[in-house]
Amino acid sequence: MSSKKPALFTCVSPALLHLYGLHDAIVVIIDVFRATSTIASALHNGARCIVPVDTVPKALEISKALGGIAAGERDGKIADGLQHGNSPLEYSRDFIENQTLVLTTTNGTRLLQMALDNGADTIITGSFPNLSAVCTFLLQQNKNVVLGCAGWKDRFNLEDTLFAGAVIERVQEHFSIHCDSSLTAVNMYTSMKDDLMAHAPKLTHYHRLVERFGLIDDIRFCLTNDLAPVLPLYRDGRLIKG
Amino acid sequence: MSSKKPALFTCVSPALLHLYGLHDAIVVIIDVFRATSTIASALHNGARCIVPVDTVPKALEISKALGGIAAGERDGKIADGLQHGNSPLEYSRDFIENQTLVLTTTNGTRLLQMALDNGADTIITGSFPNLSAVCTFLLQQNKNVVLGCAGWKDRFNLEDTLFAGAVIERVQEHFSIHCDSSLTAVNMYTSMKDDLMAHAPKLTHYHRLVERFGLIDDIRFCLTNDLAPVLPLYRDGRLIKG
Repeated sequence: MSSKKPALFTCVSPALLHLYGLHDAIVVIIDVFRATSTIASALHNGARCIVPVDTVPKALEISKALGGIAAGERDGKIADGLQHGNSPLEYSRDFIENQTLVLTTTNGTRLLQMALDNGADTIITGSFPNLSAVCTFLLQQNKNVVLGCAGWKDRFNLEDTLFAGAVIERVQEHFSIHCDSSLTAVNMYTSMKDDLMAHAPKLTHYHRLVERFGLIDDIRFCLTNDLAPVLPLYRDGRLIKG
Repeated sequence: MSSKKPALFTCVSPALLHLYGLHDAIVVIIDVFRATSTIASALHNGARCIVPVDTVPKALEISKALGGIAAGERDGKIADGLQHGNSPLEYSRDFIENQTLVLTTTNGTRLLQMALDNGADTIITGSFPNLSAVCTFLLQQNKNVVLGCAGWKDRFNLEDTLFAGAVIERVQEHFSIHCDSSLTAVNMYTSMKDDLMAHAPKLTHYHRLVERFGLIDDIRFCLTNDLAPVLPLYRDGRLIKG
């Protein structure tokens, strides 16, 4: 066994993804509010798989072809033309078990497509509800890692970076990390981890979701560790339990 | 007088600059290691002006035409074909007084050109050696502000974000700030400000400059407040004392 540790980087915006070598790396897609929390929730509650797509018409077309549920979000609310949105709380076992969810979102599913286009070796999704499952997988694989933050329309957002910090805190001894974004992520997470909910009102996305749409229960779910302990793994166009 | 505060944003990479409205904003170009520290140093020591250019041939051509000094850096060292580099300590009063400095660097002068191309209303440069001068100017102007971090080849770097945090700490009461990058910048600065030199070895750029080129004195200068208390203001192709 080689003693050389694999490398870990944090990419703070989809617009910077091309700066990182993805061909030999696991890319963790991070969209804490809310796509990757919703993906974890739906898979944990028995969804057969999640098909991430980039447009609403494609979500409708593919869900019809597969007999699945079309869902998605634009600018924080259910996308026009769809019946279901991007709330992890919508996908209870009663509703989603054995169903295929076809999902389109503003940031998370777009970043997943970009990771695919940039030749990522392996793609998984991460969020606080499946934090431990992500860390366990990364430690098992012993490969290079890029923690990919979905951000908000290419801007840096703190909640995705905080999740990157949570992962780094747990796995950092096993990786070689020379990356100021990772240093920032783990420092910010360490300073806020004792009560993420108390810090949440400082986040721009909190205001979008809570003040405009009243989604405080979504925020609480999305900031709680291991409520949906599952590993969403991308294979052949869909996210399945890894 | 309007009671509405101007807005302040932090842009953590040149690759994200297009996401911010610059037409009605002061853009602060930040390249702590070392372009904007060098610019402050040279102007403070009596340089007539600094002409930022994007290529070495252009630096040679323009310095010849103006009777100035061509200088520049690529990948942390003096650029091939030039006699002078990007160290703030090179530009003592004896050497630079009444001279025109034509400067090209990897990140800082490139970001300045991008701010210009994106129609910035006003461009200044900032670094710890001229921190107070920057803050005083921003408070006087009462305009929107974009703190533009030069980063490293479009990657996030922490030292530029720390300087953004230092500015924000001093001016935040006078601005409307809804920006996760700014929140992160000021938190990181607050956690490290008591001894920036002690935290410097964690930075990727520190290793590039100190371990490869032995530039510890440059680092110390670049992390010290108000050693070069001057405001570099961009006007008609050159940076002059504002």
